[in-house]
Amino acid sequence: MTVRRQTEVGVAVEPAWIAVDWGTSNLRLWGLDPTGAVLFAGESDQGMARLSRESYPAVLAGLVAEHVAADGPMIDVMICGMAGARQGWTEAPYLPVPADLDHLASHAVHPPLAGSRLRPRILPGLCQTGAGDEDVMRGEETQLLGLAARHPGFSGLVCMPGTHCKWAQLDGRRVVRFTSAMTGEVFEVLRQHSVLRHSLNGDDDPALRAQGLDEGLALGLTSPDKLLGRLFKVRAASLVSERPAAWCAGFLSGLLVGSEVGSQRADLGHDEIPLIGGAQLSHIYARALAMVGARSRRVDAADAVLAGLAAARQSRS
Amino acid sequence: MTVRRQTEVGVAVEPAWIAVDWGTSNLRLWGLDPTGAVLFAGESDQGMARLSRESYPAVLAGLVAEHVAADGPMIDVMICGMAGARQGWTEAPYLPVPADLDHLASHAVHPPLAGSRLRPRILPGLCQTGAGDEDVMRGEETQLLGLAARHPGFSGLVCMPGTHCKWAQLDGRRVVRFTSAMTGEVFEVLRQHSVLRHSLNGDDDPALRAQGLDEGLALGLTSPDKLLGRLFKVRAASLVSERPAAWCAGFLSGLLVGSEVGSQRADLGHDEIPLIGGAQLSHIYARALAMVGARSRRVDAADAVLAGLAAARQSRS
Repeated sequence: MTVRRQTEVGVAVEPAWIAVDWGTSNLRLWGLDPTGAVLFAGESDQGMARLSRESYPAVLAGLVAEHVAADGPMIDVMICGMAGARQGWTEAPYLPVPADLDHLASHAVHPPLAGSRLRPRILPGLCQTGAGDEDVMRGEETQLLGLAARHPGFSGLVCMPGTHCKWAQLDGRRVVRFTSAMTGEVFEVLRQHSVLRHSLNGDDDPALRAQGLDEGLALGLTSPDKLLGRLFKVRAASLVSERPAAWCAGFLSGLLVGSEVGSQRADLGHDEIPLIGGAQLSHIYARALAMVGARSRRVDAADAVLAGLAAARQSRS
Repeated sequence: MTVRRQTEVGVAVEPAWIAVDWGTSNLRLWGLDPTGAVLFAGESDQGMARLSRESYPAVLAGLVAEHVAADGPMIDVMICGMAGARQGWTEAPYLPVPADLDHLASHAVHPPLAGSRLRPRILPGLCQTGAGDEDVMRGEETQLLGLAARHPGFSGLVCMPGTHCKWAQLDGRRVVRFTSAMTGEVFEVLRQHSVLRHSLNGDDDPALRAQGLDEGLALGLTSPDKLLGRLFKVRAASLVSERPAAWCAGFLSGLLVGSEVGSQRADLGHDEIPLIGGAQLSHIYARALAMVGARSRRVDAADAVLAGLAAARQSRS
């Protein structure tokens, strides 16, 4: 993703449209020219969890104020993520899987924004129904559309590392099914609130952390069923074997990701698995996948969401 | 356990010895006559986590003050649990497994208590060494000694449900090996701090909770390797299938205990498995074990710890 700065061209270029990934705890926003080049980018901690329904228009207007004049043609604002949740701006009801990602745009909701040039469109998330198999996503479906738009021939398993890592089965532009693994959030609540916190606070040491990570990954991959009986090893290893905090943090992370990837083993196949996510977490998943002989390649999450919002804008009626 | 009240005999009967289970967040204490009958019992929230090293003597003295006169013969106070941790009263270094439980008493530490009739003895916990296999317990070893004292012929797997559920392989009075599963603590941190909390707060309904529990147990027992990919079902089931909070709480509890018990399946065997723990949690483990065809019987945790402290007192030199 390249950001073309306004100052480079000397005059303020208005965006042709605006892309927003509005998550639970923060949001990212981009202004794009007609060719898809990024004119400006912004971030904010005004995620869904902090906002009342009424505060969305002002947050959006504030973030684009310096880039959009008071008068002029309407500007599409393509939004994905938690802004479309029931407790968000305007609910965009889930599309059930199997779902055609080309239908995201036609199921978008249009929150009213009186007296503004901005024309917001919130894309729906996906849900999976059926007792014992329920699941939901909001935001990742747009990344999947972005992946499908960039790689039209791709079909297969996609892994999306994050707080709740999604594993989706994609068939062209169709999402067949998916699962959310709470791995990232489990790591965080254990790190902050469990007895393991006593073993995880201390100086970082990249080499020790990497060593702990590999040992945790190996153990998790070998026997993902034993996770609950292995978590306490983090504490015990520091008490009994005096493992330092950096090793323990790597070990816990490896144990969790290893258990998650290990449980997917039967579905991994031989095709390269796209990893859509941040660099650090994607690296851990790539390592886990490599340890069981699976190939992967990283796709930047922001690139994917931008490509998905652009594809949705193009496919809107 | 029967508590004989002092007022029944009309005069204050002094205890022959005092038993204390001093845990992380609270402690339980009993005064016993020479036959082992309980004269009085007490509880307190003055667990290890709240206490400085210096405050133990006053807490102990305060709890027995009305039962012990200023003058008289020395009174043994047999203590197990976190009072013997490094951050407790006086560290009682772990005995490594395989460990003979008859050696607990001879490895007890004797914190000084000047000018008092109380003679405290803190029993050590057990540790397991070896990279990747580390584990520790403090308190449960005394329950195991109690079980061994009450059932001299028993050998086999013992399950001790709790915040950290211990699974120990007992061979007479010898602990061969053990594992701690963080199941109870994982439930608590997820319930209080994760996104699942939004689905777990609401009216209780025992029938719905029992239904959720059984569905969670079945799923956990069938595929314990898929735990991380199943936790989010709690949230998704309330969003997509409008499952009420009571069902979700039962389902989460069942999923976790089912995954834990499912991972032990190869070791369950055909013998009756003692469950040493509280009534409610032991019931859930008993149900999980029954669902995979294993037999169990409940042993009250307080009875076991009292029997263990009594056995340790008898075996002290």
